[in-house]
Amino acid sequence: MTRPTSVFKKNRSICFYETDAMGVVHHSNYMRFFEELRLDWLKEKGLLQWHYPRQDLVLAVVEGRCLHKKPLFLDDEIEIFAQIRLERLKIRFQYAIYSSRYNDPVALGETLHVALDSQFRVKRLPPALQQELEKEIWKETWL
Amino acid sequence: MTRPTSVFKKNRSICFYETDAMGVVHHSNYMRFFEELRLDWLKEKGLLQWHYPRQDLVLAVVEGRCLHKKPLFLDDEIEIFAQIRLERLKIRFQYAIYSSRYNDPVALGETLHVALDSQFRVKRLPPALQQELEKEIWKETWL
Amino acid sequence: MTRPTSVFKKNRSICFYETDAMGVVHHSNYMRFFEELRLDWLKEKGLLQWHYPRQDLVLAVVEGRCLHKKPLFLDDEIEIFAQIRLERLKIRFQYAIYSSRYNDPVALGETLHVALDSQFRVKRLPPALQQELEKEIWKETWL
Amino acid sequence: MTRPTSVFKKNRSICFYETDAMGVVHHSNYMRFFEELRLDWLKEKGLLQWHYPRQDLVLAVVEGRCLHKKPLFLDDEIEIFAQIRLERLKIRFQYAIYSSRYNDPVALGETLHVALDSQFRVKRLPPALQQELEKEIWKETWL
Repeated sequence: MTRPTSVFKKNRSICFYETDAMGVVHHSNYMRFFEELRLDWLKEKGLLQWHYPRQDLVLAVVEGRCLHKKPLFLDDEIEIFAQIRLERLKIRFQYAIYSSRYNDPVALGETLHVALDSQFRVKRLPPALQQELEKEIWKETWL
Repeated sequence: MTRPTSVFKKNRSICFYETDAMGVVHHSNYMRFFEELRLDWLKEKGLLQWHYPRQDLVLAVVEGRCLHKKPLFLDDEIEIFAQIRLERLKIRFQYAIYSSRYNDPVALGETLHVALDSQFRVKRLPPALQQELEKEIWKETWL
Repeated sequence: MTRPTSVFKKNRSICFYETDAMGVVHHSNYMRFFEELRLDWLKEKGLLQWHYPRQDLVLAVVEGRCLHKKPLFLDDEIEIFAQIRLERLKIRFQYAIYSSRYNDPVALGETLHVALDSQFRVKRLPPALQQELEKEIWKETWL
Repeated sequence: MTRPTSVFKKNRSICFYETDAMGVVHHSNYMRFFEELRLDWLKEKGLLQWHYPRQDLVLAVVEGRCLHKKPLFLDDEIEIFAQIRLERLKIRFQYAIYSSRYNDPVALGETLHVALDSQFRVKRLPPALQQELEKEIWKETWL
């Protein structure tokens, strides 16, 4: 699978504290890479407040998945690509991570999100977020 | 789904540094909870060396997944249950996390593992590990 | 320096995700080990609520320091010792970490804490916390 | 203390996973921010290999300290400034972190480093690193 085009993308270096004793990036960090891309997307849309503490509504992760194809090393530069799809009350992000080292993706992943109120009950998405999500195009499924 | 019986189990408190600005445990930590249980299992079997650095063989995570059903809070005490299954060259762990707060599971998850040599090629599992895995009983599928 | 006696203590294993590509525990985790001991101390005194979100008052770290004497490895069992001292509006914790591998401490550290209100202004400590702190005995200074 | 000029600097956003249940960045992450700046400095000098796994020599942190003056929030943009000084066999980094929110620094810190061989014995610094360090200018002490 070659690098996607015309989808949301984030570039990033690897931090030493993200490596583990096997000399590669620890797998728990991939969920953090995915979140960094989501924050960038929310920032670009002016919607970061849904990640603020003490809001009426929060965006919660209800499912996360990652397929690890190749290792990531300290001096790798990575590209994280994403596609986003509104599924009624849920938001689906899918991710593909590429490093400078391989043509094929290093990892593929997806996360599912819902809006929760302060009692952790599922709510409708905020209209401004809903509108931005309806503009997103899902061209192909990666995993 | 009630708490499983006769399966491998780990108890654990929540650390403040595992919470996020929404006041609950950040989702990336669940992959770490799963790993802690695996380390306990390996220790109990006398097989921790497969997690040491600079070995000929390492156990790598090739897939991870987590379904988040309920939030985890700072003062929760959690129980992590697991079942383990050998699938030819792969090892499958499935997990169910329960907190002191709910009868239903807080999270369900699974990880898939293979043995890799220092060139990141898939290898046969070490015989001692293979033998321990063959003793494991998979009674039911949780997710 | 031999292991302290008659001071608050926490035992702990090392998690694989706490190791780094040098094969030892990454130094940023020591601040987390120190916090785990503080949480245990607060729990034992029935004072954990000062770490809850959305309180009128929070306990904030205003200074942290760690001297690293020896490395920590994956299969180490560690003991974290602490002494605690009230210094007017501040609380000082000092820590000594020992592993199963060495007689001398692996690390020495200290943290300073104050109570802050929701506008991040320094406040008097809650009376129940103040009383527990006044009972603590500081026998010797480790660093 | 105003923002330093003519010193090494790194810009950075805050990640949601770096916040804690008090709604601010957890203090253990500051040691990670400091490390990110050091990696950038090593990369700029072409010296990143001293952070690779399985080298004859590694750069170890022997002391770390951080003074926390102000909180950091999710939507802050931060600047990390550093000065670097060679002290015989040791390297001293001092850091000042500023956010978009305050004129005064959010945090001041320092770390001390030595070169260790694979038996964790202190060694001379690699000549290429020594030469780069001798070029660094320490204009003022921040903490």
